Amino acid sequence: MEISSSALRLPFLFLLVPLLLFFLLSPWNPLHNLSGGGDSAGRRTQFPPKSLTSISPPPAEPRSPPRRDHNSATARNPLDPLTVGEIHRVRSILSSYQPFLHHFPSIQSMSLDEPDKSRVLGWKSGDPIPPRKAFVIALLDNQSHLLTIDLDSGRVETHEISSGSGYPMLTMEDVVAAVQTAVSYPELEASAAARGLSVANLSCISPSPGWFGPDEEGKRILKVLCFSKQGTPNFYMRPLEGLVMTVDVDRREVLQFSDTGKGIPIPGRANTDYRFRPGNKPPEMERINPISMEQPRGPSFTVTDGHLVKWANWEFHLKPDQRAGLVVSRVVVRDSETGAARSVMYKGFPSELFVPYMDADEGWYFKSYMDAGEFGLGATAMPLVPLNDCPRNAYYMDGIFVSADGQPFVQSNMICLFERYAGDAAWRHSELTVSSGEARAKVTLVARMAASVGNYDYTFDWEFQTDGLIKITVSLSGMLMVKGTVHDNMNQVQNQDEMGPLVSENAIGVVHDHFITFHLDMDVDGPNNTFVKVNLVKEENVEGKTPRKSYLKPKRHVAKTFHVVNPSRRSRLGNPSGYKVVPGGNAASLLDHSDPPQLRSAFTNNQIWVTPYNRSELWAGGLLVYQSHGDDTLDVWSQRNREIEDRDVVLWYTLGFHHVPCQEDFPVMPTVAASFQLKPVNFFERNPILTARPVFEEDLPVCRPSESASII
Amino acid sequence: MEISSSALRLPFLFLLVPLLLFFLLSPWNPLHNLSGGGDSAGRRTQFPPKSLTSISPPPAEPRSPPRRDHNSATARNPLDPLTVGEIHRVRSILSSYQPFLHHFPSIQSMSLDEPDKSRVLGWKSGDPIPPRKAFVIALLDNQSHLLTIDLDSGRVETHEISSGSGYPMLTMEDVVAAVQTAVSYPELEASAAARGLSVANLSCISPSPGWFGPDEEGKRILKVLCFSKQGTPNFYMRPLEGLVMTVDVDRREVLQFSDTGKGIPIPGRANTDYRFRPGNKPPEMERINPISMEQPRGPSFTVTDGHLVKWANWEFHLKPDQRAGLVVSRVVVRDSETGAARSVMYKGFPSELFVPYMDADEGWYFKSYMDAGEFGLGATAMPLVPLNDCPRNAYYMDGIFVSADGQPFVQSNMICLFERYAGDAAWRHSELTVSSGEARAKVTLVARMAASVGNYDYTFDWEFQTDGLIKITVSLSGMLMVKGTVHDNMNQVQNQDEMGPLVSENAIGVVHDHFITFHLDMDVDGPNNTFVKVNLVKEENVEGKTPRKSYLKPKRHVAKTFHVVNPSRRSRLGNPSGYKVVPGGNAASLLDHSDPPQLRSAFTNNQIWVTPYNRSELWAGGLLVYQSHGDDTLDVWSQRNREIEDRDVVLWYTLGFHHVPCQEDFPVMPTVAASFQLKPVNFFERNPILTARPVFEEDLPVCRPSESASII
Repeated sequence: MEISSSALRLPFLFLLVPLLLFFLLSPWNPLHNLSGGGDSAGRRTQFPPKSLTSISPPPAEPRSPPRRDHNSATARNPLDPLTVGEIHRVRSILSSYQPFLHHFPSIQSMSLDEPDKSRVLGWKSGDPIPPRKAFVIALLDNQSHLLTIDLDSGRVETHEISSGSGYPMLTMEDVVAAVQTAVSYPELEASAAARGLSVANLSCISPSPGWFGPDEEGKRILKVLCFSKQGTPNFYMRPLEGLVMTVDVDRREVLQFSDTGKGIPIPGRANTDYRFRPGNKPPEMERINPISMEQPRGPSFTVTDGHLVKWANWEFHLKPDQRAGLVVSRVVVRDSETGAARSVMYKGFPSELFVPYMDADEGWYFKSYMDAGEFGLGATAMPLVPLNDCPRNAYYMDGIFVSADGQPFVQSNMICLFERYAGDAAWRHSELTVSSGEARAKVTLVARMAASVGNYDYTFDWEFQTDGLIKITVSLSGMLMVKGTVHDNMNQVQNQDEMGPLVSENAIGVVHDHFITFHLDMDVDGPNNTFVKVNLVKEENVEGKTPRKSYLKPKRHVAKTFHVVNPSRRSRLGNPSGYKVVPGGNAASLLDHSDPPQLRSAFTNNQIWVTPYNRSELWAGGLLVYQSHGDDTLDVWSQRNREIEDRDVVLWYTLGFHHVPCQEDFPVMPTVAASFQLKPVNFFERNPILTARPVFEEDLPVCRPSESASII
Repeated sequence: MEISSSALRLPFLFLLVPLLLFFLLSPWNPLHNLSGGGDSAGRRTQFPPKSLTSISPPPAEPRSPPRRDHNSATARNPLDPLTVGEIHRVRSILSSYQPFLHHFPSIQSMSLDEPDKSRVLGWKSGDPIPPRKAFVIALLDNQSHLLTIDLDSGRVETHEISSGSGYPMLTMEDVVAAVQTAVSYPELEASAAARGLSVANLSCISPSPGWFGPDEEGKRILKVLCFSKQGTPNFYMRPLEGLVMTVDVDRREVLQFSDTGKGIPIPGRANTDYRFRPGNKPPEMERINPISMEQPRGPSFTVTDGHLVKWANWEFHLKPDQRAGLVVSRVVVRDSETGAARSVMYKGFPSELFVPYMDADEGWYFKSYMDAGEFGLGATAMPLVPLNDCPRNAYYMDGIFVSADGQPFVQSNMICLFERYAGDAAWRHSELTVSSGEARAKVTLVARMAASVGNYDYTFDWEFQTDGLIKITVSLSGMLMVKGTVHDNMNQVQNQDEMGPLVSENAIGVVHDHFITFHLDMDVDGPNNTFVKVNLVKEENVEGKTPRKSYLKPKRHVAKTFHVVNPSRRSRLGNPSGYKVVPGGNAASLLDHSDPPQLRSAFTNNQIWVTPYNRSELWAGGLLVYQSHGDDTLDVWSQRNREIEDRDVVLWYTLGFHHVPCQEDFPVMPTVAASFQLKPVNFFERNPILTARPVFEEDLPVCRPSESASII
């Protein structure tokens, strides 16, 4: 079942099978270009179509830290991701590893096997880094092999074959194989023809099938759905409704072909194209003059050795990850009194992204995606669009990932890092007798990536404030997954509640949810923390004490706050050092706990979980999520009722969105965002930005209109 | 009881009684300067100390619309606030009005009596404006007089004496009278001396007393609390705990003097000063390079006739209001297909701000402020601090308000208006086979004001997005109201739950809430709207239909969304035009419904209310809130169970904050914000910013480091 370019039949090059659900790399055109993203060419050209270097013109002073040469980069920090050289080394070790000698497996995942936490915490800059190891998930003969490889000794240290449910993350090659298998299935031509099309007019995608019982076990399957790409780049808006193919990915076989929608028209192409063309009529609005966040002296942060970010009072390790997307580690903040570096969080990342759709039809019931574990948030992160995804003062970072053949590739401009001034105040007060007003401008640091998991785009922001607060935001945009219908007006629909809302003629925006569960290994002033739930309950007043005496307060109203404190680190005043969760995006899953998608995503049964730190518990849906049965979830681990007081604990927080689509979401959705915050509570002795300097006119840059400013 | 400068005794000029709970005007130093804020001098100097004109240096093109000359300004729009000339005219009419001939009343409130809604809606630019009328609340002999005055005829049209509970909004003169009465009370000297101070060392403030039964009825009372101002401008951090004086404002009499705290030390002054001084040691953080939101071609909005704002696809009337602060009216957005102006909201403003504290002690139980109706959000809005409260590209607007003697005064730089680019995308999508990425930079328009209601600062933002969304944010900063205690470390405290958290030595941060209730007169495509609560309930699957068939879904999980729709305006697809509320800041009041503060603020019993439009129902706590008994609240009106379907309805939304203080809030609080949104749902035929232009490098300004950039 090894995939190679030669295995691909020529016609598909012309068919231009849409590589749904992503990727910059394709097996027939490997772009293994390993220098900076600026040199990437071909399908990875930037938009606006300029070379990347043009987005960082040399100003009076350098704008950004220099980009790395990926080929020569070496790991300098225990947490640095595998380098190009290391990935080659792992591949080489595996190639000569006895069990794989005659058949090289498909590399579903290869990443740094991080050293033990104690070892990382004991490491200081300048120390030699701990032995480098890789963790590989390889697929061979329908078995998932979990291997750890020591790069120094060249030995496979551990090798286990998974016995639980679930398969590893899908590769680009898996997706391509499924689509190719489906589009060459003879019956498809008839389905296309019934709708006035040929197969060459189709774009097909391969969503994951979920898991719904014994029928689907023992083989890797993908569903394939097709769309008309006639006259639009936005094929998502033109489904061949009712057509669904179930494909055995490894056997390259269509297991089931179902087309019940030949009578349902394909929604039209009008107004579906979202690309900018200079001739586009602007919307009915007045022009907006050029506006920009400007820092002519360049950014105030540094990125050392490719991953270590230092800014204002913050320091953290930032790395791209093929599965999690963006990982922040060893987040420390400098104390505002002593200058000492104090730990806040050991590691934070989106652990899983669960997207259940609410439609029971054959082509829809299975849609209950777990995008991080099935497709990879980093794997689907395409280059950020300079000046539009991120401001001009942004610095870009590439990801070095691994394709199914074990070779490294560059995910260019995958992360951007920039300082933000949005016109807000970090604190303020006006007092007549003192001065007419004191305020301090608020500047923050944002680390961002955007995953395009097929139709949907998820932007992840980690925003650091000088007052010690960390704000984590997920923004949704991209395309709806629409369902074809015979109706082109709601007045034709009898029971409107039974059908999702019409977002365009013959196109229903199916109701769905998004749940993003974050792994937050909080280490507030050290690993041993305690999770405290503070209930705000109005107490009953004591009779006779105040004019409010006669009004007893039943404890029916309760508000909760959630803190992570370090019981052994007390402030000057005796308060335990802590951080609290400021919730947001509180949508909860509406599915029953026994519904298979909810069993697999049982980590969304609560919005907040706390577990003792366990090196292996990183993925809320389990290590092997694809087609899993829910036997390795955060919910399962938590049933062990382990001690969490004054221990190294991990906090899990879920941002949720209920999405009832509307016309405004057609043909591309305006961004919707939700956030939660990690806020210091008695962590600092006092307001850490009390002595921050206000901004004066002479501090600001001198800006002039660009000669060619032409916003219309 | 009329107040005049001569009534004030000289010593108080030296005492510099802190005019707590605000105001730019004082009766002995009236700054009736009526030209642009740039000419204000004296106590209203700007910070940084420069003339206002310097914040808008003449660039290559004009940055801002010109400022108005308030003396010559005339009303051009039916909703324009009273002008300087009109205020003089009203005063003149009242002076010759028979009932006031021999005793001119105290003017507690004077504002435009807005024309009937139908009249306003029928008005078009260029039409003569409807007859101008003023609504006055005057206080005379303990009676509240409600008058409407026709400015053209010079007649008092209606005159009613309030028979309900409650008094009108307090004036600066009331506050000064209460403090002066208290500080001249002989026993105060002993209380000061017991703490090693003299009265001259004190700053006293006069919070409102709430209402707690018959003892406090029939007279206007204020509580007076004192603080040491020795060695700090931040006297709030230095309470004389246990000292509370109850003052009859009109009789200028101390009704009750209580000092139970002579043994409680005054918290120290160390680290309480929040003012910037060039010698201040910066916090333990690296310097942040200059950063600015730059628009060298100036703003893209226009402000016509002082109040009519037009930007991108939006148009609205913006005015300062002495009670509500900032009022937006006739909010219309241009249709992205037809260009037609479409109504979204007739009027929106913060109707009340309820702040209950959670401490039953004599000096604390009464603290249950209703800041809008008691003190006025506009009345307490001091000038915004350029470059720190608002960015350099901001335009400022003054308020023209009325003092107790019926004279106009200028609340300068009270509102700022600016375009924001925070580095985010308005929408994005990446699709490998189409292009490597499309994204559109998100630019918004923000209208902002900040009220400093004594210790607390509330910033109100109305943010308009080109996709039709309106985001309303309230940000809290300023000072805690702290409680003195004998303890300087938590380890001395037996029952820590009984006491609020120690935020500094001998200073407890008392737990409290903030509830801001907005009046939102939604007119989505016209006045007649219907409020729709959409319940998302997972339906039970039909047996045999899908692999999820065997998993019945009990309806135990329900999510709700709240929409205002226009049932008679249907989209092309037959969906009703609508806006939905995207909730945020969901804290609910913990008080019992029968507790007097909650009776008075019963509008916080629900987070969302809908009422039929009623011209007189503007103030959620009632027209006369101060010392009211809760007989005129939104809750009371709603008990009439009026029809709200397909009617002109008003939506009321409450943002809530539970505030458990922490060390970081000392001595000034880092900003905490919460938002809710009004989001178009099937209002536009499709994404209204589909054809928005991306930003290209050549669109942006050319910026250079300022010669003197010196941020440290």
